[in-house]
Amino acid sequence: MKVESVDMFYLAMPDVYDIGDGSQDMLLVRVRAGDHTGWGECEASPLPSIASLVCPMSHSACHPVLDSVLGARLDGPGDIGRIVRAVRANSLDLLQAEHTISGIEIALWDLMGKALEQPVYELLGYERSHPKTPYASSLFGDTPEETLHKARAVRSMGYRAAKFGWGPFGRTTVAADADQVQAAREGLGPEGVLLVDAGTVWGEDVEAAALRLPALEDAGVLWLEEPFNSGALGAYRALADRCDRLRLAGGEGAHNPLLAEHLIDFGGIGFAQIDTGRIGGIGDATRVAKYAQAREVQFVNHTFTSHLALSASLQPFAGSGDDWICEYPVEAKPLAQDLTRNHLTLDESGCVAAPEAPGLGMTLDLDAVRPYLLDVDITVGGKTLYSTPDLTT
Amino acid sequence: MKVESVDMFYLAMPDVYDIGDGSQDMLLVRVRAGDHTGWGECEASPLPSIASLVCPMSHSACHPVLDSVLGARLDGPGDIGRIVRAVRANSLDLLQAEHTISGIEIALWDLMGKALEQPVYELLGYERSHPKTPYASSLFGDTPEETLHKARAVRSMGYRAAKFGWGPFGRTTVAADADQVQAAREGLGPEGVLLVDAGTVWGEDVEAAALRLPALEDAGVLWLEEPFNSGALGAYRALADRCDRLRLAGGEGAHNPLLAEHLIDFGGIGFAQIDTGRIGGIGDATRVAKYAQAREVQFVNHTFTSHLALSASLQPFAGSGDDWICEYPVEAKPLAQDLTRNHLTLDESGCVAAPEAPGLGMTLDLDAVRPYLLDVDITVGGKTLYSTPDLTT
Repeated sequence: MKVESVDMFYLAMPDVYDIGDGSQDMLLVRVRAGDHTGWGECEASPLPSIASLVCPMSHSACHPVLDSVLGARLDGPGDIGRIVRAVRANSLDLLQAEHTISGIEIALWDLMGKALEQPVYELLGYERSHPKTPYASSLFGDTPEETLHKARAVRSMGYRAAKFGWGPFGRTTVAADADQVQAAREGLGPEGVLLVDAGTVWGEDVEAAALRLPALEDAGVLWLEEPFNSGALGAYRALADRCDRLRLAGGEGAHNPLLAEHLIDFGGIGFAQIDTGRIGGIGDATRVAKYAQAREVQFVNHTFTSHLALSASLQPFAGSGDDWICEYPVEAKPLAQDLTRNHLTLDESGCVAAPEAPGLGMTLDLDAVRPYLLDVDITVGGKTLYSTPDLTT
Repeated sequence: MKVESVDMFYLAMPDVYDIGDGSQDMLLVRVRAGDHTGWGECEASPLPSIASLVCPMSHSACHPVLDSVLGARLDGPGDIGRIVRAVRANSLDLLQAEHTISGIEIALWDLMGKALEQPVYELLGYERSHPKTPYASSLFGDTPEETLHKARAVRSMGYRAAKFGWGPFGRTTVAADADQVQAAREGLGPEGVLLVDAGTVWGEDVEAAALRLPALEDAGVLWLEEPFNSGALGAYRALADRCDRLRLAGGEGAHNPLLAEHLIDFGGIGFAQIDTGRIGGIGDATRVAKYAQAREVQFVNHTFTSHLALSASLQPFAGSGDDWICEYPVEAKPLAQDLTRNHLTLDESGCVAAPEAPGLGMTLDLDAVRPYLLDVDITVGGKTLYSTPDLTT
């Protein structure tokens, strides 16, 4: 079969706030080939991504993404990687293209799985889908007391792992940060898996980060996430060398697999956090999962939106029992929750796994999300390049 | 003063061909503050860049670029870096933003130089603008004979340095490549500076590249450019370790300074080729120039378009006499040539230098390029976010 259509839909909550919640809008991708339809989601700014799909060609290495996808042969899983490589070559100088192809690639896997009646993880060569322990993400409270209450609440909800981050952490004194971390540990209990997200607060300042290591080590924190700007490999490496049991985590911003591999090779991270909707899709995320595993680094998904995105993000490490922890969106906006009729709920042991149904295993509820659809029109030189297509399947 | 307006103009040749010529279109940027106007150029796909300027906010780390620029304080050169940092933080998850801010940042330097009546290189702290030796870029011929004729032609035009690349190079046999390189050397003469551009032909295959090293060393080639995919740091390092006098060159795709610094630190390049219109602008390119100089790596501009872009690309290393070679666009399309009334011509010794006039020192000819202007209209949810502004100053 051949790729017959690639459609993108910009959906958003009625009000989008200036807060760190990435589930307030969505770029949904629909791909059709043969008699099949696949769905994916870009973890990306919708309008520039749509523009990168349909923009006029600038030169031979700056084609619109659509040029390398529409009409492409799609007879087996291997064709999906070939399409991504074509986009990377033909859109080399179009920076946004790596975010854009991510959602398309995910939709191609969904379609291929439906066509072959197999879950995506099987198409990736995995024998089974190992359940993962989900962690709950929270902001640090404004005070240690508030953090204590938040951690107790997370524990009472049944989560065995929790991440605290942002808020005042890293912004005042070393002692204040130690109190926050200790409060989180106390609230979560001695057995809980505690993760801390510094949200790049220290820029490239290794010494500022190193001052916090004793408190993090004392509290038995499993990972310290994004102490530095993404890409500050030298700072990551220097801090990693000063850790005892604590490991560094990072990689959510990686928009191709090499960037994630550099964080492993040169940054010394212990956990590679990959967003399948940004890195180039499921294939590139799987490449990183295997690269990490060969180097005793754990792969973890980065997911903050819908359960369609969650399913896509679980596939790349579904088959690895060693990679046991996963990010699980707990406070997504109604748009993200309403996108799918089914959801990846926790099993009786509190774990979550990539589904067994063909493709990504998710059933979309288009009627539910249609009210969130934003009409987009783009014209260049009098020619309409994009006009929001019909969302009806 | 404050930034009062940021306008972008999409210009293109009537016919854009599927060839490796980046001068076929242009994203021109106009910034106004106080009574001053500055101009810059993004080396980027125009439509996605415009979309990234005006798109709706997705969340707190995915703002449109304009949010961090419009109304920003602009009292001195230090404010320019502050604006770029704000864009990087507020548009962290908007990949295209780094290309977009590059042209805006260049326009801000042009404006600041005009306001302070100083050339940009002086604002950067350089005492003088050192002339650079320009190199001419050509494709390898289909046969060694054709390459020989091309090299003789370049030499007769007075160029002391020439780069050959792409074409059949790296695509057939090691012996065929050796014949091509030897033909280029013969045509250029024993004194000419010979550069070879492999155009990422070997992907990440170090052995394939290493087989070509003897011929390149024998012909006294100064640099081998982009043997591998940009970002394949391990492959760059492995090949660099097997070079004798030859040095590796790369970095044109770097969209922030860290990526270029990684090629220096982990890739072992000897020449850092930076496009000011992509890396974040003049400030970030200057950061890389100084980083390179401290590590005995040479800085070289990457420029393929107008003389406005050429002036912007010469500023970051204008003050460094050690960085002696520069890329000089010799076959740009009329759009790129017509943009400026004045041009950076070669002096009597065949060299080119960043101009002495205030700002970037270029006078635009808006009447000449107006015929190339493409009207762009973008509406989202019934609201017009962008409609091509008036190009009249």
